[in-house]
Amino acid sequence: MLQEVSYDHRNASNVAFIGLGQMGARMVKNLVSKGEKVKVFDVVPQAASSVQGVTICNSPEEAAKDACFVFTMLPNGHIVKDTLLGDKGIMKGISNNALFIDSSTIEPQQSQELGKIAKENGFRFLDAPVSGGVTGAEAGTLTFMVGGEDKDAEEVKPVLLKMGKNVFKCGGTGTGQIAKLCNNLILAITMIGTCESLNMGVKLGMDPKLLTSIINVSTGRSWSSDTYNPVPGVMPNVPSSNQYKGGFGVSLIAKDLALAENAALSAGAPLPLGAISHQLYRTLIANGYSDKDFAVVYEFLQGKK
Amino acid sequence: MLQEVSYDHRNASNVAFIGLGQMGARMVKNLVSKGEKVKVFDVVPQAASSVQGVTICNSPEEAAKDACFVFTMLPNGHIVKDTLLGDKGIMKGISNNALFIDSSTIEPQQSQELGKIAKENGFRFLDAPVSGGVTGAEAGTLTFMVGGEDKDAEEVKPVLLKMGKNVFKCGGTGTGQIAKLCNNLILAITMIGTCESLNMGVKLGMDPKLLTSIINVSTGRSWSSDTYNPVPGVMPNVPSSNQYKGGFGVSLIAKDLALAENAALSAGAPLPLGAISHQLYRTLIANGYSDKDFAVVYEFLQGKK
Amino acid sequence: MLQEVSYDHRNASNVAFIGLGQMGARMVKNLVSKGEKVKVFDVVPQAASSVQGVTICNSPEEAAKDACFVFTMLPNGHIVKDTLLGDKGIMKGISNNALFIDSSTIEPQQSQELGKIAKENGFRFLDAPVSGGVTGAEAGTLTFMVGGEDKDAEEVKPVLLKMGKNVFKCGGTGTGQIAKLCNNLILAITMIGTCESLNMGVKLGMDPKLLTSIINVSTGRSWSSDTYNPVPGVMPNVPSSNQYKGGFGVSLIAKDLALAENAALSAGAPLPLGAISHQLYRTLIANGYSDKDFAVVYEFLQGKK
Amino acid sequence: MLQEVSYDHRNASNVAFIGLGQMGARMVKNLVSKGEKVKVFDVVPQAASSVQGVTICNSPEEAAKDACFVFTMLPNGHIVKDTLLGDKGIMKGISNNALFIDSSTIEPQQSQELGKIAKENGFRFLDAPVSGGVTGAEAGTLTFMVGGEDKDAEEVKPVLLKMGKNVFKCGGTGTGQIAKLCNNLILAITMIGTCESLNMGVKLGMDPKLLTSIINVSTGRSWSSDTYNPVPGVMPNVPSSNQYKGGFGVSLIAKDLALAENAALSAGAPLPLGAISHQLYRTLIANGYSDKDFAVVYEFLQGKK
Repeated sequence: MLQEVSYDHRNASNVAFIGLGQMGARMVKNLVSKGEKVKVFDVVPQAASSVQGVTICNSPEEAAKDACFVFTMLPNGHIVKDTLLGDKGIMKGISNNALFIDSSTIEPQQSQELGKIAKENGFRFLDAPVSGGVTGAEAGTLTFMVGGEDKDAEEVKPVLLKMGKNVFKCGGTGTGQIAKLCNNLILAITMIGTCESLNMGVKLGMDPKLLTSIINVSTGRSWSSDTYNPVPGVMPNVPSSNQYKGGFGVSLIAKDLALAENAALSAGAPLPLGAISHQLYRTLIANGYSDKDFAVVYEFLQGKK
Repeated sequence: MLQEVSYDHRNASNVAFIGLGQMGARMVKNLVSKGEKVKVFDVVPQAASSVQGVTICNSPEEAAKDACFVFTMLPNGHIVKDTLLGDKGIMKGISNNALFIDSSTIEPQQSQELGKIAKENGFRFLDAPVSGGVTGAEAGTLTFMVGGEDKDAEEVKPVLLKMGKNVFKCGGTGTGQIAKLCNNLILAITMIGTCESLNMGVKLGMDPKLLTSIINVSTGRSWSSDTYNPVPGVMPNVPSSNQYKGGFGVSLIAKDLALAENAALSAGAPLPLGAISHQLYRTLIANGYSDKDFAVVYEFLQGKK
Repeated sequence: MLQEVSYDHRNASNVAFIGLGQMGARMVKNLVSKGEKVKVFDVVPQAASSVQGVTICNSPEEAAKDACFVFTMLPNGHIVKDTLLGDKGIMKGISNNALFIDSSTIEPQQSQELGKIAKENGFRFLDAPVSGGVTGAEAGTLTFMVGGEDKDAEEVKPVLLKMGKNVFKCGGTGTGQIAKLCNNLILAITMIGTCESLNMGVKLGMDPKLLTSIINVSTGRSWSSDTYNPVPGVMPNVPSSNQYKGGFGVSLIAKDLALAENAALSAGAPLPLGAISHQLYRTLIANGYSDKDFAVVYEFLQGKK
Repeated sequence: MLQEVSYDHRNASNVAFIGLGQMGARMVKNLVSKGEKVKVFDVVPQAASSVQGVTICNSPEEAAKDACFVFTMLPNGHIVKDTLLGDKGIMKGISNNALFIDSSTIEPQQSQELGKIAKENGFRFLDAPVSGGVTGAEAGTLTFMVGGEDKDAEEVKPVLLKMGKNVFKCGGTGTGQIAKLCNNLILAITMIGTCESLNMGVKLGMDPKLLTSIINVSTGRSWSSDTYNPVPGVMPNVPSSNQYKGGFGVSLIAKDLALAENAALSAGAPLPLGAISHQLYRTLIANGYSDKDFAVVYEFLQGKK
C-alpha cells in the first residue's frame, strides 16, 4: 500500500468527474462532503442533478477544462475512449497537464492504449478501478487499484482517500484493471461455490446459519460466506436478505468475467472455473435474473418450490 | 458452539483409537501429551508403534474392550463399517455402553446407518469428522463437526478439545459429515478459482505477493488466498512453498468431492462447479499429481515452462 | 455383431418379463405380436393389464416359474437385485437352469455382482441394456448391448431380435452396461453442445433448418442434429416439435450420467464434460423440467422471451 | 444448397489468392489442376513457391490487380482487414468491380464490417469459411459456408466447387462465419465427449473398436466417432492413428471457440459446454499439446501410463 503523503490543499475547483451512475454519484457525494468542489457531467442530465453542491456542466470538455484531476466512471472501454479521444473528446478540448483517472472497469489492454495515447498528447493517465460496490461507494470505503506512474498515483492519492480507504499501486498502466479482474474472477467463482454448498447443506437438513458459522471458522470461509452470505436471512443488510435487490448485479459480474476471459486468453492462462461460472451467470441472465444481486445463484440452484 | 462443561477426570485408560495414519497418529499424540492413556490399533503395526506412550493392541476389539470412548479414523466408510460391524467387529466383541466417535470422512448416509445399527445394539454413535488437516492435527487445533445426540457430544467434548480447538454440534447423526463435505466443497472450488486468478495475474505481469495482498483485503479473499496461498514463495510454511509436498493431497480432496456429489445427488442439489472441480482434480490424478498438495492446481494451470 | 443363428422354435410359454413400464410394455407387445407367449409381472397391476395377450402373474416368482428366459426391465439396480435375490426373489423360487436377462440400466458393478450370485446359485445371467428409447421399443428396433457368456447371448438372441434390430455382444458380465453408459454419456454431452450451437446460431439470425442442414453434412453432425434435432419445427415427429413431450426424460439421462460417473470414478477416468452436463440436467430438474425430453436444454438456454 | 448454374468459362487469369498456408496452398493446387490460372501472394515466399503452376506476386495488390475473384485465406481478422484495407491494402490498389471472397475463419462482426467497407468502396464481399480441414482441402471436398449477396455467391460458386463439394448460402454478410462457428462449436464439444466416453470404456475393459462400432449405430454416433475416431488404432488414416500428427490442431479449435464465445456473448446465448471445452483445450496448450490434432484430448484424459 502507498505511504501516506501530506495533502497539499490544492484548489478543489480543479476536480472533474464524468459519469454519475450508481457508483459515480456516490463517489462525488463523498468528494463534496470532504471539501472538494467538483465539476460533473453525465449524459443523463438527471443523474448529474441528483448530487448536491457540484457544478453541472454541459459536456465532458466543459467539466474537464482547468481541472487538475479528471475522473471517468463509465460503463465500458468504448465509452471511456470516446469520452477522452472522440470528436468532442476531452483530450482535444484542453491543453494543460491534467491527470486522467479512469475508475471504470475496462480491458487492461484498453487502459494501456489510452495511457499511451494520453502520453503522446502530453497528458498523464491512471487506471484506477475500484472494489467495494455501491455500499463501499456510499460509505467512502472503496479500494482503488491503481496502474500507471508512481508519482501520479501519489499525487491523486489524497483525493482517492476521500472516496475510499485503500489505495493499491499495482504497477504500470493497466495493472489496476488486471488486479480488479483477478479479484472479481475469484469472487464470481467463490460465490457460486458457496451457493452450491449452502444449498446442498440446507437440502440435506442443515440450518444455514449454523452451517455458515462452521464454514466461517474453517477452510471454506471467504468474503462470500462471512460478509455477503447468499442465503436469505443468514445475515442482515445484504442483498440476499432483501430479495437480492441492490448489490452487485448478475449482468455486472458477467461483464467482468468476459473481460477476465479476454485478458486470460491474451496471456495463455486457462480459466476452467471462470469460464463455466461466466456461462452460469449468462444462463441466469437468459432466465430473467439480470438485475438481481449475483448471490441470487443460490435461489437459482434451489429451484422452484 | 457447545458450552464448556466441567471435565470429570475420568480414567484415561478407557480411550481407544483405531487408525493411526497421518491424522490419527498426530491426534493420539495430543491425547497422550494431555494426560490420556490410549489403547490403539492399526492394521499396519509400524503405524501404531510410531506413537509413544500408548498401549498397542492386536485387534480393534482388544483396544475397544473396557473403553468408554472408541475413536475411529479410517480411510473410508466400508472400512469403518467393517471395523465396527464385521465378523471381528468391535460391536460384537464388547458389551458395555461405549460411545463410538467416528472422525473419518465418510458418506453421511453411511454414518446414519452406523448410528442406527449402533443404537439397535445398545451403543451410542457420533460422527465427528475434522477440518484442519495434518497441520491442525499436529498442533491440536482441529475443528470437530459432530452429529448425533447432544448429551453424547457433551460427554466426549473434553476429549475432543485435547485434539482440537473448536467443537461444533451440527444436528442428528450424519450432520457432522454433511458440514464437513459442505466446507470442503467450497474449499475445493475456491482453491481452483484462486489458482486461476493468480496464474492469470502473474502471466499478465503482476507480482503474486502484491496481487495476493490486494485480494486479501478485497472481495476475493478466502482461506485459500490468505492462509494457504497456492503460489510458491508468497507465504512461508505452506505446501506451495515446499514443492507442494505434504498438506492436503489431490486424491483426498477428490475423494471428498465424490462424497459431496453423492450427498448432493440424494438431495437434488446441483453442483456445477463442484462437479467440474472434481473432474479437474481427477485430471491431475491421471497426470501424476495424486500425492501433491491440492494447491498444485496452480502449477498445472501454469503449464510447462 | 453376432452371427445369425437358426431359431429353435422353443415353446414360447417359457418367457417371463418383469417390469412393464414405458419400455417394458412396448417390448412385450413386440414379443407377443411375433409369436411369443409371455408371463408378466409389474408392481402396478394396471401396467401389466395394459398389454394384450399375456398371462398376468401375481409375483415375479410366479411369472418366472418354468421360464427359460426371465427378462427384467426395472428402474434401478436395487430393485433388480431385490427382484432376483430378495426375500421373495426369483432365484429362491425356481430351481431350473433359467437364463436371466436384465435389460435395466444399472451400475456395471451391480450387474457383475448379480452375475456372480446367479452363477453361484446355478443360474445364468446376462446384462442386456438397450438403446433406442420408447420409439425404438415401440417399433421393435432397439439395440441390445449384451454382457456375459457368448453361448447364453446366442441362445437368447432370437428372442432379443423380436424386440430389436441389433444385438451386440460386448464381453463379460457388466460390459453391456458399460457400453450403454459410454453411449449415453456421449449422447448427453452432444445434445447439450448441439443445443448451445443452434441457440447461438438462431440468436445471431440464422434459420435453424438451414443451419441444421449445414451441420448435418459437416464435422458437427451427430444423431442429436440429424435424427433428434432439439429445435422446435426443424424435424417432424421428434419431441422438440411436440413441446418436448415424450422421448427421453431429463431425469432419465441424469440418472445414466450418475451411473457413468460412478463407473468412471472406479476406473480413474476423468469426465469433465460428462460431469458438468450431469449438473446442467440436474439444474433443469431443479427448475421444473424433469419430465420433459432431454432436448429441452434448447428451451432452457433460449431463456424467457 | 445453391442450384447448379452453368459455368461461364471466364478467363482463369483473373483469380487471385492471398495466403498459402496449410489450407490455402492445397486449395490453390485444386484450382490450378482444374484449369484456373491463379496469381498468389504469401508473406512467406517459400509458401507461395510450394505450389506449381501459379504466378507468384510480390504483394497482395499485385496479385489482385485485374482479378475478378480475390480470395483471402489468412490466420485472423486483423490480418484480413489489414490485407484489404491497410496502407498497402488491396482496396486502395485496384479500382475495378472485384469480388472479394474471404475464406478465413474470423469474427462474424469483422466480416460484416469488411463487407460494409467494401461496399462503400465499390467492391463486393463474401465471407466463405470452409469446413473439412487439410484433408478436405487436399481432396477438393471442402464445404463452403457463404454469407453475402445471393448473386455474388452464384457468380463465384463454380470456382468454389473446384475446391469443394458443398456450397451453402447462409444469408447476409457474416452468416458464413456464424455457420462455421456453430459447426465447430459442436465439433469441439463432441470430440471431448467422445474421448471421455472411449477412455472410460477402455479403462473399464472394453475393446475400443467394438465400443466404437456399437456407438456408431447408436444415439452417441457423430463425425467424431465414425469418421475421425480419437483412439489410436481404431481407424486408419486419421491423426489419432498417427500420433495425433497433422489434422486440426488444438490451437486452431481453441481459436474457433474463442470466436464462438465472442459471437455468443454478443447475442446473449450461454455456452456452458463450449466455454469449458475451450478452457480444456487451453489447458492442453499450456501443457504442450498445442500443435497436436485436437483428438489428442483422448491421450490427455488417459493420463500417464
